[in-house]
Amino acid sequence: MNKKLMPFDKSKLDSIIKKYPTPFYIYDEKGIEENAYEFIKAFSWSKGFRQYFAVKALPNPSILKLLAEFGFGADCSSLAELMLAKKAGIKDDMIMFTSNNTPKDEFQYADKLNAIINLDDITHIDYLDKSISKFPKTISFRYNPGSLKKGNSIIGKPEEAKYGLTREQLKEAYVLAKKKGARKFGLHTMVASNELNVDYFVETARILFELVHEIKDELGIQIEFVNLGGGVGIPYKPEDKKIEWSDLGSKIEACYNSFFANEKKKPKLCFELGRAITGPYGYLVSTVIHKKDIYKKYVGLDSCMANLMRPALYGAYHYISVLADTDVDSRERLTYDVVGSLCENNDKFAIDRELPRVDIGDVVVIHDAGAHGSAMGFNYNGKLRSAELLLKKTGKVKKIRRAETVEDYFATLKF
Amino acid sequence: MNKKLMPFDKSKLDSIIKKYPTPFYIYDEKGIEENAYEFIKAFSWSKGFRQYFAVKALPNPSILKLLAEFGFGADCSSLAELMLAKKAGIKDDMIMFTSNNTPKDEFQYADKLNAIINLDDITHIDYLDKSISKFPKTISFRYNPGSLKKGNSIIGKPEEAKYGLTREQLKEAYVLAKKKGARKFGLHTMVASNELNVDYFVETARILFELVHEIKDELGIQIEFVNLGGGVGIPYKPEDKKIEWSDLGSKIEACYNSFFANEKKKPKLCFELGRAITGPYGYLVSTVIHKKDIYKKYVGLDSCMANLMRPALYGAYHYISVLADTDVDSRERLTYDVVGSLCENNDKFAIDRELPRVDIGDVVVIHDAGAHGSAMGFNYNGKLRSAELLLKKTGKVKKIRRAETVEDYFATLKF
Repeated sequence: MNKKLMPFDKSKLDSIIKKYPTPFYIYDEKGIEENAYEFIKAFSWSKGFRQYFAVKALPNPSILKLLAEFGFGADCSSLAELMLAKKAGIKDDMIMFTSNNTPKDEFQYADKLNAIINLDDITHIDYLDKSISKFPKTISFRYNPGSLKKGNSIIGKPEEAKYGLTREQLKEAYVLAKKKGARKFGLHTMVASNELNVDYFVETARILFELVHEIKDELGIQIEFVNLGGGVGIPYKPEDKKIEWSDLGSKIEACYNSFFANEKKKPKLCFELGRAITGPYGYLVSTVIHKKDIYKKYVGLDSCMANLMRPALYGAYHYISVLADTDVDSRERLTYDVVGSLCENNDKFAIDRELPRVDIGDVVVIHDAGAHGSAMGFNYNGKLRSAELLLKKTGKVKKIRRAETVEDYFATLKF
Repeated sequence: MNKKLMPFDKSKLDSIIKKYPTPFYIYDEKGIEENAYEFIKAFSWSKGFRQYFAVKALPNPSILKLLAEFGFGADCSSLAELMLAKKAGIKDDMIMFTSNNTPKDEFQYADKLNAIINLDDITHIDYLDKSISKFPKTISFRYNPGSLKKGNSIIGKPEEAKYGLTREQLKEAYVLAKKKGARKFGLHTMVASNELNVDYFVETARILFELVHEIKDELGIQIEFVNLGGGVGIPYKPEDKKIEWSDLGSKIEACYNSFFANEKKKPKLCFELGRAITGPYGYLVSTVIHKKDIYKKYVGLDSCMANLMRPALYGAYHYISVLADTDVDSRERLTYDVVGSLCENNDKFAIDRELPRVDIGDVVVIHDAGAHGSAMGFNYNGKLRSAELLLKKTGKVKKIRRAETVEDYFATLKF
């Protein structure tokens, strides 16, 4: 089995742990930057290309700022995420607001920030219009292709998803929005989550590009930008193969050109990736505090599903590295459940995982935790969420979120 | 289908909503108190009977205080829960600390509070001993019966659960703890979650009572108390049948007497119920803000899975009532997905649920949310957790937890 690499060794980690006790998240600045750079490069052929980072994946302003240096905007889905984007200095049409079942105050705030609003339902046109003083000049709609598009394992079948407008509603929506005063129109879809098949995205692009023509032909409405959404997966398992940005870029380019090469007004292209940008460059670092041997062998960490929910919520796989002062590779290999301390039997980071023998005091690194990790933490059992660190290119470590304290946990109570 | 009742009508709810905007949790003091009273009464035959409320189910000090009036103690699983119990005025052996994979500081704090410590593993004897100055006089162990006990759907098979000691380890553990200075011994198990079959608990009692004899016979150690754990379910579905406390009480009494009727030293009995105490008396109250009609019909609430995770996490059923100013029963019945606003396709409170036609502005009450509801909330997508209200017996409403604000959400960040 291929080993997953880390941007630190045991002695580096020891020096970090000395200052910041485990558990903590650590993000690799160099990895994120190189990845962001490669991604943008793969779409350099596309004029006006935009990538809105899906804030929900890693809602930390330091990360948003870092990505903004590469020209990334922010894909926000709520009031708090809009505020985070603003605090990170991202503004106007560099923010795209894609929410669903949206409350009025969130539309109002998105409008105030001059964000591009992407409507999830035909009824939201009127709702938005009544919520704000003037209907926005630029408006986008989220398309749900229904059974036209095959589903993917996490997001399910599009026709069973709560998101977006049907094809018929979409056309009605552009006409209605134009009447309300909109002049620039976007088309958006998001039908995948953690998908590793590049063709899935090319196929999605093809469906949307076709629709751009159809809308032009039928309604005389020019689509200004096409947002292909997010959903590009990452190779959680060592045997998974990552989508190469260059491959995605050139395949989408070919598809794009087959539709628009000869047109004067070409739609701009956008993505709203989250996981594929930061996911592989985040690590949850824990210390082994207990070992247990009953009907199965257990390794107990000082973190739990309050820190990383994906294994419990989705049965998701996360690769695990064991670090010790001695050579772990020479240790015998054993099968463990790697668990946290929550009173919840699905509080397991791994089930029946073969690992080198683990000893108390060893450091366990859970990989690919740079997206939907810290963001999904909860406080069940009174557990506290951990700090987030950024490993800078210089080798220095910066705390970019402090750990929660019991005072935070008690903040909404009065005694 | 049987309708589920509520301790308020639309006009009462309107007056509450006027002061406390939706979404919020509201708990019915009268319901909780009557239930607590009935439960305690069912075990009045049992001398020294104890019920430790599972704090994780509803970690609100106002609720803990309310239950303490009925003699309830606190079952704590973490540092923060121990602190909550203390703040609610619960102390000494009215606190039982049942954790797993426990960090040192939590043992130290439990010891400081004089709580009864219930160890989850044989290695924890030494760990505890090294963590505190003097080994406690009273100690309890959690037994994992393995395949001796059939599993239940939520907690899974005991032999695959991370909890407790095997039978062999248990015996070794009592001997070891005695050597360390322990003089009073408890026996605990917890092998069910949300179980509605009363026989399951009688069978669990039988296994533990047998073990009490076995430990006495083999080791000469007298078990002072037997904690039958929690796991009594509630009838989430209208067709589910609740476990009657009187039935549970008398069946366990018969089982108890068959073991101990003629013994001079009888073990005391304890439970650590959570869900069955408060679950049915909590309601998540939301307002319908959107309706959507695409490939399916959707009702969009102003709450989401950040407020109540059980449907998304477990596919759990929660009964839903619709309240309006007009008679909802006379409305046509339609099939809806009832959804929140999270960008997560499993953010659905109900899928394909038949309800009276729902209109925007209607109030939707999600039942049986008084346990593992608010407690399991998270902040994914930047969503904020809602307030908790207590509907007093007098009809007055008391805010017992304020809603989170964006300031809370940003508290661990520095801008």
